[in-house]
Amino acid sequence: MVYSHIQDVLLGKFKEGETVNLRGWVYLTRDLGNLYFLVLRDATGLLQTVIRKSNTEPELLEKIKQISQETAVSLNGKIKKDERAPGGYEIEINNLNILGLSRDYPLSKKSHGVEFLLNHRHLWLRSPRQRDILKIRESVTWYAREFFRREGFTEVHPPMLTPSMVEGGATLFELKYFDRNAYLTQSSQLYLEALIFSLEKVWCLAPSFRAEKSRTRRHLTEYWHLEAEEAFYSNEDNMKLQEKLVSYICKKVAEKNREELETFQVRPERLLKIKPPFKRMKYQEAIDKLQRKGFDVKYGDDFGADEEEALTKDMETPLFITNYPLEIKAFYMKEDPNNPGTALCADLLLPEGYGEVIGGSERETNYEVLVKRIEETGQPIENYKWYLDLRKYGSVQHSGFGLGLERLIMWLLKLSHIREAVPFPRTPSRIYP
Amino acid sequence: MVYSHIQDVLLGKFKEGETVNLRGWVYLTRDLGNLYFLVLRDATGLLQTVIRKSNTEPELLEKIKQISQETAVSLNGKIKKDERAPGGYEIEINNLNILGLSRDYPLSKKSHGVEFLLNHRHLWLRSPRQRDILKIRESVTWYAREFFRREGFTEVHPPMLTPSMVEGGATLFELKYFDRNAYLTQSSQLYLEALIFSLEKVWCLAPSFRAEKSRTRRHLTEYWHLEAEEAFYSNEDNMKLQEKLVSYICKKVAEKNREELETFQVRPERLLKIKPPFKRMKYQEAIDKLQRKGFDVKYGDDFGADEEEALTKDMETPLFITNYPLEIKAFYMKEDPNNPGTALCADLLLPEGYGEVIGGSERETNYEVLVKRIEETGQPIENYKWYLDLRKYGSVQHSGFGLGLERLIMWLLKLSHIREAVPFPRTPSRIYP
Repeated sequence: MVYSHIQDVLLGKFKEGETVNLRGWVYLTRDLGNLYFLVLRDATGLLQTVIRKSNTEPELLEKIKQISQETAVSLNGKIKKDERAPGGYEIEINNLNILGLSRDYPLSKKSHGVEFLLNHRHLWLRSPRQRDILKIRESVTWYAREFFRREGFTEVHPPMLTPSMVEGGATLFELKYFDRNAYLTQSSQLYLEALIFSLEKVWCLAPSFRAEKSRTRRHLTEYWHLEAEEAFYSNEDNMKLQEKLVSYICKKVAEKNREELETFQVRPERLLKIKPPFKRMKYQEAIDKLQRKGFDVKYGDDFGADEEEALTKDMETPLFITNYPLEIKAFYMKEDPNNPGTALCADLLLPEGYGEVIGGSERETNYEVLVKRIEETGQPIENYKWYLDLRKYGSVQHSGFGLGLERLIMWLLKLSHIREAVPFPRTPSRIYP
Repeated sequence: MVYSHIQDVLLGKFKEGETVNLRGWVYLTRDLGNLYFLVLRDATGLLQTVIRKSNTEPELLEKIKQISQETAVSLNGKIKKDERAPGGYEIEINNLNILGLSRDYPLSKKSHGVEFLLNHRHLWLRSPRQRDILKIRESVTWYAREFFRREGFTEVHPPMLTPSMVEGGATLFELKYFDRNAYLTQSSQLYLEALIFSLEKVWCLAPSFRAEKSRTRRHLTEYWHLEAEEAFYSNEDNMKLQEKLVSYICKKVAEKNREELETFQVRPERLLKIKPPFKRMKYQEAIDKLQRKGFDVKYGDDFGADEEEALTKDMETPLFITNYPLEIKAFYMKEDPNNPGTALCADLLLPEGYGEVIGGSERETNYEVLVKRIEETGQPIENYKWYLDLRKYGSVQHSGFGLGLERLIMWLLKLSHIREAVPFPRTPSRIYP
């Protein structure tokens, strides 16, 4: 038996009156006396099907009675154009088989509390809205890959289990690794830095972990981290690369995912506005701006969610904040020779107040300076023995960045919480299902 | 300044006598009196460059003296065809700048012990052989993605942190997750099964973890697991999909990576032989064959590395072993109605004795049968509450499989140990660098 997809019908690939075989899950049922409507759901969409009871064999009517939400069925029917039907097509059912029954499906069409939905995430993912998020997520990763391939990058797979910490111990997940301890990676950057000496330009998309208690709309304990590292790139080159990447993804998604974007009331024009060059602002200017807005911040403070939101609330395009004070940024960032005391770095803030999505910088390449910077963090220098080797044997200028995939998706689709941007979200209070 | 890549020169993109700018790392140096040779390495290859001392400014000669293996340089020179030079081209250096010095690079051209190399993995990755492995690895993942996209699959990102175990507790990494325990995933299968009810056909490439002490040539504690799950697929459909996937990857790599394959003395013909349909053998036949070969195995035993090797040592194409006894396979496998007591499953063994690369099966879809099977494992049924929901609400026939990416690469390149197939290998005794 050859089965078609709902999308094939909706795209008009069949003629009116033709017969198709479809299968999927029943999204909703409606009994209007002689007419029985059954909306079918498959991976590609929703389609209205109908049975005229007076025309129907008792055997089929018996089956129909057993169907409730999420029953799996296969069916055979005739295609009918019908302007009143959502999508413009309807199927008149000839025959139907029940593949798997469903009784008392816990997620009805009425609205549920967030905790209830998250406890049923394995079922909630079936909803057309969640499906659309998953499709957009795939698009974003596909176009990121396409972009990096065109730019001459090699995709690599860094390790998740690491012997030492990178961004400070407070937010590390620790585990027993046979007769020693290990940590879950917080960033693959140091490993990517090793790989540029082989491949020059590398990138990865891999999980990263943060044992942060912060229960904000924008934090996950496990997230997918898109990281890139580029030999011979200055911080300026690095920022241009980020602009191109983010713009490329926005353009492609705007072109290729119009249908999914509609679900979220996102007009493609909103994404097509995202074009290089992005606006830039020095950290000092950002502090001044925030003070003028009445924020209680001073030079040397890091930005919280509220500050980040305020900085781009009224913007329609992303904003780079550059030249953070060295002491509030990671040890591996290079000092800006033209602005001493600040780093050759940039955080990219999303428009409309969505906050940071990328952190990037040029890396310190000098062995002695780097040793000093590590010592200042109070961490044992032995933890960085192999990393320091990269500065001993043919050190070269290089830069890199890390992008939080879920944060980008959250902004793309105007999600109010990051947990919808990943199939099975992990937060301090949630690791189920 | 515009820099070219070594590959551009080797592919003849420039005319003889043209001047190019190159940069990279010095792979080796040779002093032949008046002629000084310096082999440059970049992400794309090796190229011989030469300086005629008698023609050269003293300042440049001073720089040359400082150069040793892995010094980073940029240089400018004239292209010369030279049949004696490896690759057929040579560069006559006009000018050279040292970007980063290198003293006493620990990896010389002479052979080192494996432990020494692994302790210096961050540097070892620079060798042309390791670079080629990384390039092949990227190709394999790229073509796998291309394949799944063409077949209508959606790529998804399953969680690494899980609340319960899937394949038995003995090989689980456990960690503290705030005020409870969590486990590192051993397989994303159960999550993929949830996702087929939304997307029908899904796949992922993500880390999986096994806390196995087994110190074999084929085991890593952290590996990249390519998993797929397909709604409405029988075990037969599933096997056909695997055949197509593996053949597609082999064909593409044979076509696109000829140069890298040469490093490993792999002829493209070896890979082009891999075509559907693959040979098949029932578990019972495999036991018989092994007994005839003198192995001390009986029905109900699982195969170890030696048995797997013996089964395909003389084969040039992969072999499916089907119908394993239910009791030695995972609880979620469906019983074969035509061969009671055995599972609708198949393990795919690589040719030439390289052992298992894929495990796959049709999944049990009946709620009551599945509950019974879980109970037989002795695990608490509560651990599978959400998973069992998938059988309560519109259960459908489905199948899936998991492929060990590093095992496939190991066979592709005839590596003698799996540790070379991943940039930073993790084994029971190794988590550094």
